[in-house]
Amino acid sequence: VHVVSAAGVWMTGADGRRYLDAYNNVPCVGHGHPRVTEAIARQGRRVNTNMRYLHETAIELAERLIATMPPDAGLDTVLFVNSGSEANDVAWRLATTVTGQRGALCTDFAYHGVTDATAALSPESWGAGRRPDHVETWAAPDRRRGTDLDGQAFAAAVARLAARGLAPAATILDSVLTSDGFLVPEPSQAHGWVAATHAAGGLWIADEVQGGHGRTGDALWSFQHLGITPDIVTMGKPMGNGHPIGAVVTRREIATRFGDETVFFSTFGGNPVSAAAAMAVLTVLDDERVLERVGRVGEGLATAIRSVALPYPAVVEVRGVGLAVGVEVTDAATARAIKEGLRERGVLIGTSGRHGNVLKVRPPLAFTEAEVPVFAGALAATLESLVS
Amino acid sequence: VHVVSAAGVWMTGADGRRYLDAYNNVPCVGHGHPRVTEAIARQGRRVNTNMRYLHETAIELAERLIATMPPDAGLDTVLFVNSGSEANDVAWRLATTVTGQRGALCTDFAYHGVTDATAALSPESWGAGRRPDHVETWAAPDRRRGTDLDGQAFAAAVARLAARGLAPAATILDSVLTSDGFLVPEPSQAHGWVAATHAAGGLWIADEVQGGHGRTGDALWSFQHLGITPDIVTMGKPMGNGHPIGAVVTRREIATRFGDETVFFSTFGGNPVSAAAAMAVLTVLDDERVLERVGRVGEGLATAIRSVALPYPAVVEVRGVGLAVGVEVTDAATARAIKEGLRERGVLIGTSGRHGNVLKVRPPLAFTEAEVPVFAGALAATLESLVS
Repeated sequence: VHVVSAAGVWMTGADGRRYLDAYNNVPCVGHGHPRVTEAIARQGRRVNTNMRYLHETAIELAERLIATMPPDAGLDTVLFVNSGSEANDVAWRLATTVTGQRGALCTDFAYHGVTDATAALSPESWGAGRRPDHVETWAAPDRRRGTDLDGQAFAAAVARLAARGLAPAATILDSVLTSDGFLVPEPSQAHGWVAATHAAGGLWIADEVQGGHGRTGDALWSFQHLGITPDIVTMGKPMGNGHPIGAVVTRREIATRFGDETVFFSTFGGNPVSAAAAMAVLTVLDDERVLERVGRVGEGLATAIRSVALPYPAVVEVRGVGLAVGVEVTDAATARAIKEGLRERGVLIGTSGRHGNVLKVRPPLAFTEAEVPVFAGALAATLESLVS
Repeated sequence: VHVVSAAGVWMTGADGRRYLDAYNNVPCVGHGHPRVTEAIARQGRRVNTNMRYLHETAIELAERLIATMPPDAGLDTVLFVNSGSEANDVAWRLATTVTGQRGALCTDFAYHGVTDATAALSPESWGAGRRPDHVETWAAPDRRRGTDLDGQAFAAAVARLAARGLAPAATILDSVLTSDGFLVPEPSQAHGWVAATHAAGGLWIADEVQGGHGRTGDALWSFQHLGITPDIVTMGKPMGNGHPIGAVVTRREIATRFGDETVFFSTFGGNPVSAAAAMAVLTVLDDERVLERVGRVGEGLATAIRSVALPYPAVVEVRGVGLAVGVEVTDAATARAIKEGLRERGVLIGTSGRHGNVLKVRPPLAFTEAEVPVFAGALAATLESLVS
């Protein structure tokens, strides 16, 4: 699709055709949200220096982000960067520096970035057989299949690291498990993983690039949906509604120990234009009561999908939380056929999961009740066309 | 300095005071250049998706960048990222994947980024005694001191790697040696380093974050000033005049071999807004004949500084190329005093070099003849105040 313009959840192709965007999480509050584009344009014309010259927008943004963290978590320090990859990379540097350990744990089809260090934490982008020596993975429990009912998969991964003489510097988790096919765990399972990580001397990194900024509907951050308290929170993509910015939020003692042992400076990080974009996003989330709507619309969307799709034998399960909805189908070829059928009908989605058999329905959070029947109708027509 | 607005090479503080910016390289074509801010605002309102949806601006930008490379270098493939750190990190991944080697060479006070992999290539940000095992450094030749006259420092660094059982995946160099205090080498020296890197099976990474986009005045890329042909070119900061974007330019066979063995995707990389910003910068460089001016003004600035500063015993040497001017003074305390004295007189500079004793005069390329006497006058007054 060659897109030439976009607004809200609708994209327009070069041929004038409109597409419902049920795929892009980056334009968090909707494509081209006027409050965000205006904030960027206004600040860009005033000044766009870097943080060597202290700028109040960045300070305000840091304070505002800290205020969104759980009150007793001590997550009181922010480092600004330019992307989720940089945020996770810096989180990894924090964890290895502070713990003195060098092992890592991630889910077995996770994606956490493009840099050398974060690609190592991204089984989704490993080439065949290329597991980095310092990384162990565990499979998220699959309720439907009844896997990991005893919750031992995580402990086994820690033990495999230990057998190689390694202890974890960190476990990193996208709390909505986007790349793993939205196998969102139970809070009790997540609590067990955090406790086991801490017992092994590691830190917990909550990667909010996918699940953050209100996607779960019940909280601004998806780790809150699991009721866990991370040591480090990272954010990226949706933070500036597409304007490149990322952030690492952590406890002061972690940032300080890192600062003592290394020198950190990101030229773009927290530049006033990026900060203005991120402030505008947080303001829109508040003013438009986005979380409340995400909870309501997400539930309506999942219900509509269940009603339309589950009658078809190719559809295995509809799961997820908020506007992070996964539709597991029998195999990757079927998933691709449905994705293509939806595209022909003017609806854009993705696929995910280790086996490529999960439809990834992850629209901008500007998705409303009005789009639910559009999506459900296109899905119904697609599924029907595939059996007839 | 708490900056509230800026235009061209002038920044305005919260107290209304104006400062001549002789420090910031990020606003390459000048703070808030209207053609760049307008391009960003216009594209931001239209669409800001990512490259999953092919966008012609990114393609045009890639083609335009490739056209700036030396004709026979085969540098025909572009990967877009969000910053210089990401660009260097990806370059490092390319080099290690393609060569199968894992050693690295950089100058002994280099800075190449904030990620785990690029911080390892950045002696400037290593904590005391924290040299990564896989990295060796060499000291840039210092003509004034007569160091490395026989050009053996580089070969010795390769030999030290070899003694640890390592061969270089890459040598990475900022061709104007900003962090090392602008010890710009002779072309013949640089040619020797490239040949020795290739002989050891490594690739040459030209980091153009500092020296690129016309800073040397005689060419768009600073590796051209040295007359060398790199295998990988990276760019960042000035590329979008402050809008976060970076790029890696390399030969197709390198990108392809990387693509065969790993999966690469940067969500923000080459998004249409970033691409529009980068296109606007290249257009301004052409339309305003910036390189021609940089060559002329850079020479005038260095001459004015020599005339004003060399009479003072504290000033050791004035060197550099184009608008990358280093003023070596006797020690770090003197450098700090001069920097502070200039700030009091409304002129902003930085310091660099392993010993912190080099004034870093690296203004936006919008710096013109009109600013030369302003800078020279403030420097003269500062130097005089320090001896009287």
